[in-house]
Amino acid sequence: GLSLILMREKQTIAHRLEKIKPSATLAVTSKAKKLKSEGKDVVNFAAGEPDFDTPEFIKNAACRAIAEGFTKYTPSTGTAELKELIASKLKHDNGLEYSKEQIVVSCGAKHSIFNTLFSLVNPADEVLVPLPYWVSYPEMISLCEGVPQFITTSAKNNFKFTPEELTKHINHKTKLLILNSPANPTGSVYSEKELKEIADICVQNDIFVLSDEIYEKLIYDNHRHVSIASFNKNIYSRTITVNGLSKSYSMTGWRIGYLGASPEIAGAISKIQDHSTSNPASISQKAAVAALQDNSSFSEDIRLEFQKRRDYCILRLKGMKKIGYVKPSGAFYIFCDIAKTGIDSVTFASRLLDEVLVSLIPGEGFGVDEFVRISFATCLPQLEKGMNRIEEWLKKL
Amino acid sequence: GLSLILMREKQTIAHRLEKIKPSATLAVTSKAKKLKSEGKDVVNFAAGEPDFDTPEFIKNAACRAIAEGFTKYTPSTGTAELKELIASKLKHDNGLEYSKEQIVVSCGAKHSIFNTLFSLVNPADEVLVPLPYWVSYPEMISLCEGVPQFITTSAKNNFKFTPEELTKHINHKTKLLILNSPANPTGSVYSEKELKEIADICVQNDIFVLSDEIYEKLIYDNHRHVSIASFNKNIYSRTITVNGLSKSYSMTGWRIGYLGASPEIAGAISKIQDHSTSNPASISQKAAVAALQDNSSFSEDIRLEFQKRRDYCILRLKGMKKIGYVKPSGAFYIFCDIAKTGIDSVTFASRLLDEVLVSLIPGEGFGVDEFVRISFATCLPQLEKGMNRIEEWLKKL
Repeated sequence: GLSLILMREKQTIAHRLEKIKPSATLAVTSKAKKLKSEGKDVVNFAAGEPDFDTPEFIKNAACRAIAEGFTKYTPSTGTAELKELIASKLKHDNGLEYSKEQIVVSCGAKHSIFNTLFSLVNPADEVLVPLPYWVSYPEMISLCEGVPQFITTSAKNNFKFTPEELTKHINHKTKLLILNSPANPTGSVYSEKELKEIADICVQNDIFVLSDEIYEKLIYDNHRHVSIASFNKNIYSRTITVNGLSKSYSMTGWRIGYLGASPEIAGAISKIQDHSTSNPASISQKAAVAALQDNSSFSEDIRLEFQKRRDYCILRLKGMKKIGYVKPSGAFYIFCDIAKTGIDSVTFASRLLDEVLVSLIPGEGFGVDEFVRISFATCLPQLEKGMNRIEEWLKKL
Repeated sequence: GLSLILMREKQTIAHRLEKIKPSATLAVTSKAKKLKSEGKDVVNFAAGEPDFDTPEFIKNAACRAIAEGFTKYTPSTGTAELKELIASKLKHDNGLEYSKEQIVVSCGAKHSIFNTLFSLVNPADEVLVPLPYWVSYPEMISLCEGVPQFITTSAKNNFKFTPEELTKHINHKTKLLILNSPANPTGSVYSEKELKEIADICVQNDIFVLSDEIYEKLIYDNHRHVSIASFNKNIYSRTITVNGLSKSYSMTGWRIGYLGASPEIAGAISKIQDHSTSNPASISQKAAVAALQDNSSFSEDIRLEFQKRRDYCILRLKGMKKIGYVKPSGAFYIFCDIAKTGIDSVTFASRLLDEVLVSLIPGEGFGVDEFVRISFATCLPQLEKGMNRIEEWLKKL
């Protein structure tokens, strides 16, 4: 009958998934892994995580938690113990006062960002995303039925947008700005002065700021990380500060991220987490407690090591005529301009992997097709080997 | 100006959260915890997790994974090793053939259920939910902007709906039926014959089935768990089979759940997970591998222990004139009719906790206010103490 015909027209998958692509960084990575498993000597310039092991004192804390039977449900937004340590970290490092009720611990900073967008974005709301962007931002916005509005930046201004460029993109549908400093994939870092101007514009226009500060500890030269929420009460109440342990403590697999926000927003996100995932793994929470109590030099040691690697890579790239770059001030990526090669980023990455066994991420996934992302989250001998291969390969192009 | 006035009308929190309540089971639990921390001798009949520790062999596997540095990103839907074990578990225990690509590992079965609804439910789609229901089902449906349609069941039919009742609730907006057998909070178990009738109706009407089988291993007497997807290809392709390790291996805190579905649905859920959480904790995945390789009697031992406890509780409830119940065939809950006391469930739970220090969950959160849920996930001496207190308290009412 009629009702049967109507039913047949039902789509299986919900509309919110129509525009969603799988994570672009994963395609290259899985091909590289396959080659490696076949015994090929692949140099990995694609990594999105530190190559160091999680420090021993954190591993020991996790094993103690397991032995003691800390293997049950915890409060869904994290234990009081962990939240208190996060609150004092945010106070001490970032000058931010959040009560325990304003903190939500999630399964990684990615999860914190998704929960934030899911709690704030209505269908057709616009979310400002500086371009190049981390691959998941636009996809998350689409999953929440919002509309990503890109603020295109350029190498000329170190991949940072100006106050004028920000203002130009704001209209009455603008709900939120996503800020990521230090940035993936460009390594750019906004100065205190720049952040203050951005904050003022966001307050004046009543828009929220999702400040993704996951690369906070990986910052070089004389640059300093500043949390945008720290300037005044107005921007504080409009900011969701996101961070985690993955990058600073080599804890990517443990999946612990967190956010601080106004009580209203933190409360909304708590409800989402109550009904979608419950608590992040109890053992990982105990590991995070150990990381936040750390007085060792681990975090500073890896920062210095990354800076050394960055300097080496920059030295090598200087010698390659066909590659442009902006020296990154933070994170562990160099975003390279490959326009002079005349090859699009996906072909570039695919040929580089096939022909000289170096994996890196095509810029397409970050919104620019004439760039590729080189990660220096690998040791100096590997960096040298990979740079040699790229240099040789470029000469033959 | 005008634009400023328009902006001021913006709501902070997205509409999808308007109807969402915090998890109802958490309110009582947190009050009970507070009393306990003050040194009060609270008997806990509210637990939603086994009271046994995670078995040693699983803990050892997790500590080995930590020691070996298995602390990095894994594929976002789980390792190949874990998926293969899940596939063979589903084949062996449930007669279900899923390829690795059809399996998605998530941060607990709750997460698997949320991802399923988020991938399938469009705004205004109707989702059928048997009532009484697990507290998070309607909230998850609302978060996905769907509309829960409740199929009210009664103690007379062991809290199970009939084929006629199911058919009556289906219309052209019906997308999905949520099935939970063995059920929380009633412990009811659908027979193979009943499930076959349900399957036929779902196929005829082209609706999907989310089969939440998390209590599969906790089933008593001569009841047998049957997976609805196992009957034929038509129902197989329309079913999302959800399960996890939390209840069968006392692994609630580890957060490992999984689902098997058609390649199209599993692919959609993979994309959601790529962009919302990435992989469940790497260490928890290794723990799950150990659990799925288990040849010990752990799972059967706790089943027998739970059955003993259930029998004790039923014996005691028989002696309480003001309480009605249906003997549960599975899970670890008894859903008790308190209508004869003349007290609503929230007041009942609150007074019982305040006056005789027994915590249980009011039925309101499960959709029926004249019931309370007693959990027997606690040891026999505690069950005896709690039952004594309830009996005395009821006499004084």
